[in-house]
Parts: sequence; structure tokens; C-alpha cells
Amino acid sequence: MFDSGIGGLTVVRALRELVPEEDIVYLGDTARLPYGTKSAEVVGRFALEDAEFLLEQGVRLVVVACHSASSVALAELERHCPVPVVGVIEPGARAVVAATRSRRVAVIGTALTIAAGAYERAIRAAAEDVRVVAKATPLFVPLAEEGWLENEVAEAAARRYLEGLAGGGIDALLLGCTHFPLLSGVISRVVGKGVAVVDSSAETARAVAELLGEMGPGGRGFKGSRRTAGGASQGRCRFYLTDLAPGFRSVAERFLGSGLEDVARATVGG
Amino acid sequence: MFDSGIGGLTVVRALRELVPEEDIVYLGDTARLPYGTKSAEVVGRFALEDAEFLLEQGVRLVVVACHSASSVALAELERHCPVPVVGVIEPGARAVVAATRSRRVAVIGTALTIAAGAYERAIRAAAEDVRVVAKATPLFVPLAEEGWLENEVAEAAARRYLEGLAGGGIDALLLGCTHFPLLSGVISRVVGKGVAVVDSSAETARAVAELLGEMGPGGRGFKGSRRTAGGASQGRCRFYLTDLAPGFRSVAERFLGSGLEDVARATVGG
Repeated sequence: MFDSGIGGLTVVRALRELVPEEDIVYLGDTARLPYGTKSAEVVGRFALEDAEFLLEQGVRLVVVACHSASSVALAELERHCPVPVVGVIEPGARAVVAATRSRRVAVIGTALTIAAGAYERAIRAAAEDVRVVAKATPLFVPLAEEGWLENEVAEAAARRYLEGLAGGGIDALLLGCTHFPLLSGVISRVVGKGVAVVDSSAETARAVAELLGEMGPGGRGFKGSRRTAGGASQGRCRFYLTDLAPGFRSVAERFLGSGLEDVARATVGG
Repeated sequence: MFDSGIGGLTVVRALRELVPEEDIVYLGDTARLPYGTKSAEVVGRFALEDAEFLLEQGVRLVVVACHSASSVALAELERHCPVPVVGVIEPGARAVVAATRSRRVAVIGTALTIAAGAYERAIRAAAEDVRVVAKATPLFVPLAEEGWLENEVAEAAARRYLEGLAGGGIDALLLGCTHFPLLSGVISRVVGKGVAVVDSSAETARAVAELLGEMGPGGRGFKGSRRTAGGASQGRCRFYLTDLAPGFRSVAERFLGSGLEDVARATVGG
């Protein structure tokens, strides 16, 4: 799995609960984050370099845990990778379509994800009759990283971004960024009980677990894995980051929901 | 002048008012922003590449308008560049020392700037008796970019970051990030009238103008400049960005305080 930073750890967290026996290698491109403010061209190039790093580790499936990369580079990644590639757009889109009765949903994400319109396309592909309101909510990213999840700043930002959205018959809201599950409490409160909040990290983990089930046990595992093929032992998680900035650990552990043990610095894309 | 992004445009804005006849070439490394979350090693490498780009344009002075780069890479840049190099740390440090009577000041900035401790060192070098409280206020960056300068989110964030600071006899606060001048209204209100707010962008522009005055008129100008040596004509501004993301223009113009005309995409550091 790769992401532009540590947001994808919310997908790792969900995936470990579903398939604890799987080995996971995670690449966070922290030296070049965030992808969400960059052009599609640059994000596409970075994503290919990230996937290449994972393929060199012998992974049997690539999860694109970055919404920006999933929204602009998934087709190119699929052409490039000899293993299945799962993005974070489609699982969330299918889940929010399943959650709505009013057939009106909202999607929130970073500026690039929203501008790229990938969610509108994916939701329309899943159900033509569903109307989508898409809104960029960029401040939710630093709020999650700062750990301001329930305070008055998070509350004020959520109100400003979401209060207008809750009207118009919307009954489901998709969190279109891996950082946003940390803020799901305040988001749910602001949009109210009548709106189902769909977590794209959890939905992506579910899609990955299903695909792994279809692929069957075993596979190559990554280099140096101690996992025996088909065994039910606890899978190993390795975390590679392209930069280890001061204070990264506490933020990463907040996203992962547990201690970050096997961490190394990696160089990606020269 | 270079910066990790468009924050340095607040320095350009101040500099144009002081020396309108000077040509300015600005490089914003938007493809690799932010520097504030990256390690000193990575920031140092990026800064050298940025300076190299400017030197190729024939500049006669390099302004490091990025606090993160100024705090960790200034000495290396000075060794590397055959022209004078001005950072954003020292001018602000000297100004805040001049502004305090209680000899207790506060500095706010990004996580890396604060962790690097460059302001404490610069203030101590300027006046040994001044005590410094340094605090990272990372959310001010996306607030400035979002244009949330005076609303209830900016207000709540400023209160949470700054209310504790205002005690302890502090009578001067240094804005140690080029994004923060946009929030100076709400920051001034929260810290109260008894605390002088010192703007490092304006102070840096003043230091650059002084140095240019000492260097005398003329100089090489950058490639293709129409400026005549020693002439009093209006200087030309060229803006290079390493990535042109959707919506960058409106944000950049908010920082610059005027229209952004001569903009081109640049490639820096392979």
C-alpha cells in the first residue's frame, strides 16, 4: 500500500482487523507530500514511482491509499503493474450509493480529489440516478495531523464546510480522504443523524480483503517475510517513509491506532 | 527569491513597495511543498537546487523567503552562492528584539522552524537577555491558503494556539512564517494590544532593501531583463512555480496583494 503520507494508515488499521494474517508493506511518500495540492501530471509520476518501490518488495496486490493518486493515476497504475491494483475511489463510491435512499449524496476531499471529479464519475458509474454534491474541505487534513479531532477549531471548521451541505435532501456523506475518518465524530455531529457517514478507508479495506479472499492464500509475500504460505500466523507490517520528520511518529500512531514498530526510511524516485 | 510555495509572495509584496525599481525573480517550489514538515536534510537539498535555479537567471542577491529553509540551510546556501544570501530569520529576530521592553518575546512558526530552534539562536545572538517562548502553529498555513483570515475558524485556532502565550510578560510576538501576515488581524486581536506583532516578511523586505542600497544600483539583472542599469523604471517580476495546481492563482494573488501576471512552470532538482 502506498500513500502520499501517513493518511493511508487508516486503511492499514482497517485492513489488519479484517485480514490479520496478511503481511503489509506500507510506503508513505512523506518527502513529497501532500499530493492533493499538486497537478495530475506530477501526482501520476510520483504514483508510478511509489508502485515500483512496492513491486520491488514482491507484493501481490497494490493498494493506492491516496485519494489524489487514485483519482488521477489509477488507470495508468493498472497498466503498469503486473498485480491487481485497488484504489480508494470505487469502494467508497459503491458504499455511498448503497447507503443513500434519497439518491442524493455528498463527497468531501482535498482540492485535487474534488477538482478531478473522480468520485462523481465513480458514483455515476455505480448508479446513474444518484446526484452528487462535491466539496473540498482541505483544512480537515492538518486538523487530523494536529490531533484537533474534537475541539472547537475542528467543530468550527466542520460547521463552515458542512452546514450548507446537509440541506438539499442529502442522506449520505462520503469521507473522500484517508485523513477524515479521524474527524468522523465531529463530522457526524455536524451533519446530523439523518446523514450516514461513509468511511472510504474502511470500505477500501473491505474491498481489499474480498479480493485477497478471491486470490486465495499464499502468494509471494514481500522480501524477507517470515510468513509461511497459507499459514494463519499474525502478518507482519513494514512501514517505509521517504522522510522521517520530527514528530512523525505520534501523528502516524494516531492514524494507525497502535504503535509503529518496523519503520525505515526509503528513497523513491531519485 | 525562493520559497517552498507561495508564502514568500508576502515578502515580494513588501519588497516591491520598498524598491519598486528592482527586478524580482521568484521561485515557488510548489511541486515539493511544504518544506515545514520535512527533515532538515531534505530541506537542505531542495534549497540548494532552488538557489541554483535562481543563480542561472543571473540574480545578484538571493532571498530565502522560506522559514524552514532559512532555519536549517542558510549557512550551506551562503557557502554555495557567489552572491549575498538573505534569510527570513535574522531580520525578524532583530526586529522583535527591538520591539520588546519586557525582554520576553514569543515566536510562532511551522513545526520544523520551531523544532530547529533557529529563532531562539538568532534572538539570543541579537540580545542575550531576551527570553523566548517558541510555539508551532501549523494550522495557520492552511488557514491562510484557504483564505479563512477573519472567520470563526481562524479565531478559534488563534485562541487555542496563542491564549496561553499572551501571559508570562510577553510584549512582542514574531510571525515566523511568511503565511502568517495574512492572519495578523486575528492574531493581533487574540494577543491583545499589549503585545506588538512583528511581521518577518516586512522585516526581511526591509533588510533586502538596505542591502541593495549598499550594493548600489545596476547589477546584472536576470536573463532577458529590460531594466537599464541604474534606471528608475518599474522593475519586472517573474514568477516561476514548479507546479501549477488547480486554484493556485487566487491563493497566490491573495498573498501578493495584486494580479500575478508573468507566471511560468519551472523544473527544479530533476
